[in-house]
Amino acid sequence: MAKIAVLGYGVVGSGTVEVFYKNKENLEKKAGEPLDIKYILDVRDFPNSPYADKFVKDFDVILNDPEVTVIAEVIGGLKFSYGYVKSALEAGKSVVTSNKELVAAKGAELLQIAKDKNVNFFFEASVGGGIPIIKPIHACLEANEIDEIAGILNGTTNFILTKMIREGMDFGEALKIAQELGYAEHDPTADVEGIDACRKICILASLAFGRHVYPENVHTEGITKVTLSDVEYVESYGAKIKLIGCARREDNDEISIGVFPAVIKDESQLAGVNDVFNAILVRGDATGDVVFYGKGAGKLPTASAVVSDIVSAVKHSDTSRSLTWQDSTQDFIRPFDRFDCAHYIRISANDDSAVKETVKNIFGDVQFLVTKNQSKGELAFVTSVMTEQEVKTKCDDVAKQGAEVTARIRVLDY
Amino acid sequence: MAKIAVLGYGVVGSGTVEVFYKNKENLEKKAGEPLDIKYILDVRDFPNSPYADKFVKDFDVILNDPEVTVIAEVIGGLKFSYGYVKSALEAGKSVVTSNKELVAAKGAELLQIAKDKNVNFFFEASVGGGIPIIKPIHACLEANEIDEIAGILNGTTNFILTKMIREGMDFGEALKIAQELGYAEHDPTADVEGIDACRKICILASLAFGRHVYPENVHTEGITKVTLSDVEYVESYGAKIKLIGCARREDNDEISIGVFPAVIKDESQLAGVNDVFNAILVRGDATGDVVFYGKGAGKLPTASAVVSDIVSAVKHSDTSRSLTWQDSTQDFIRPFDRFDCAHYIRISANDDSAVKETVKNIFGDVQFLVTKNQSKGELAFVTSVMTEQEVKTKCDDVAKQGAEVTARIRVLDY
Repeated sequence: MAKIAVLGYGVVGSGTVEVFYKNKENLEKKAGEPLDIKYILDVRDFPNSPYADKFVKDFDVILNDPEVTVIAEVIGGLKFSYGYVKSALEAGKSVVTSNKELVAAKGAELLQIAKDKNVNFFFEASVGGGIPIIKPIHACLEANEIDEIAGILNGTTNFILTKMIREGMDFGEALKIAQELGYAEHDPTADVEGIDACRKICILASLAFGRHVYPENVHTEGITKVTLSDVEYVESYGAKIKLIGCARREDNDEISIGVFPAVIKDESQLAGVNDVFNAILVRGDATGDVVFYGKGAGKLPTASAVVSDIVSAVKHSDTSRSLTWQDSTQDFIRPFDRFDCAHYIRISANDDSAVKETVKNIFGDVQFLVTKNQSKGELAFVTSVMTEQEVKTKCDDVAKQGAEVTARIRVLDY
Repeated sequence: MAKIAVLGYGVVGSGTVEVFYKNKENLEKKAGEPLDIKYILDVRDFPNSPYADKFVKDFDVILNDPEVTVIAEVIGGLKFSYGYVKSALEAGKSVVTSNKELVAAKGAELLQIAKDKNVNFFFEASVGGGIPIIKPIHACLEANEIDEIAGILNGTTNFILTKMIREGMDFGEALKIAQELGYAEHDPTADVEGIDACRKICILASLAFGRHVYPENVHTEGITKVTLSDVEYVESYGAKIKLIGCARREDNDEISIGVFPAVIKDESQLAGVNDVFNAILVRGDATGDVVFYGKGAGKLPTASAVVSDIVSAVKHSDTSRSLTWQDSTQDFIRPFDRFDCAHYIRISANDDSAVKETVKNIFGDVQFLVTKNQSKGELAFVTSVMTEQEVKTKCDDVAKQGAEVTARIRVLDY
């Protein structure tokens, strides 16, 4: 009999308890032994809950109960979680978590403790909600060298961009609807500025490339500057604007990594990912591109990933030491100035042949884009592949010719 | 040190050896111990192979070598494979295989032997080539009751349909190109008649619903009757024709299962799956729809799945007994006459209001489709949801009114 404790009875916590008891019989078959939730930790009281007798307010009750072998941390944030998870692992208990902030900030340290103590630290729910992605990368694609990972990792921003693309809403309107529907928080910063997506690409990159990538070292841009005008130009290019987190293996044992709005061609499996859905593309040297798609958030999808990790933690009570990565100085992260890709650029300038000549002289071979509602005095085009540094210099050169660059969005090729 | 034997040195077998040695160091880290391939079984001679010293022609050499603990069967078919795999499992060796015919025909029996002998029988490569699907369903989505699985499971037919849809080729032309490119066999029956896809949906359904589904009990139609005219009508409906294998949980503990060309709306994640790519949609009660996409065949993708299973078999040398399903009488498979969905129907009849009235009288509310190249004397429409039995009766009724039904394709809602 494995006894479990759930830390936090918010949306994901209550979902975890719900999914656990709904599928208990089947989960026990999978785990190979009886399972039960012994404690639920929450500062609030739930006197009318069917699980009222399980609630505790003191984490030490859980920590000091040798019967508890697996702890599910679904509180979120770092304030309480980090201390709880660390002491649980140190006490020889396995931990599963949905907390991307915790894994992105402290993953290497916590994985090392888990390894030292011969227990598990699993975090399937931290990326992609109910989409299986951590375990497939770790336990299904291990015969590949992973060359790139790219994903639509944040449902809120994907919902907003979908509204802009499909219904011609501007960013502010679309955000307001996302807030009304409960997809965006009252303070939407973590979503719309790319912070949430950044934590997730850090976790995926750490897993795929074996060294911890800390969020503060990742170039991160949100979607607040994406305009309807850009959406339309990009549409004329046969593409969509998506908020992408991406990481790729470079030469010299370096990686490139970033989070930013990107132009994605309609043929890509990522272009058709709409609303609050997420998708993650993994490019392996043997298997080619594999894409995982589904609901990236939500009570039951996320809870189902937490519960699956609970079963794995019980079942592989001593066999998952290979799920790990090294802490590392961050010098393997290539400076973002050297990131190379094509660029969509919009400039304020007359659409006449002289300006076009100037653009060609500076950017070389470009593809000009035309839309129905194109403003006079505006020109948009897509460049060939060049580094950040190169494109910035060229944008400065264009500005010197009196044409202001009003938008630049990277074009990715997935 | 785990010693491995590879049975068969064809496309997948040589790929398996290649991927294994390319990634050996990393695989050993994942497995937690040194690994090596000790034998390769093939009837042919490979004197110039770098692995020449590993080749044997007598399976008993492998069977009787107690050092060999994991066997990878990549011969295909049943003739040799079944006996080899069965005796390997009975001898207490774990087996991994890419052989969908074997798993679809003998899975329940082989899984039972593996369970009795406390060894592993893994088959990730048997469905979806390099796409992780077996392990994600078994070990990531176990907190879900799976309601439906539907997939584009055969790359050859998807390539042919893509050519028909994108380039307006007819079936025969597209098949010829597929053969020239090596995607289709000289005798393409197993692909174009849906037999290959049927084996794969049987494996997925057995895994998802826990009881073995044998191919001979599955309604199976291929794509040979799909015409360009149907492709066009369906396009006007905002949809694509895809060869789908699908299985769903019904009431009374029954399942529905079938393989057939189906009309898939463009919004579906399955509609944008083109060329030789595969995709599998899994609908769970907690996680909603999850889709797995990638190359469903090919030397290296398939080999990477085989190698991943080898590592899992070494690592979880006694912990995967939960990957199993029951043998079963087939009475839980609902007769296909009760399968219900909407239907695309094309009839030879004048496009006049009298005929349309007749259609409406018989089929109820329908949506008529119009194309640019529509032949005179032809009418196409989409019905509401009804069972096979109902739609057949209605087609007979239409025929009695002098209008021949020239095509009927099921419309699925994924």
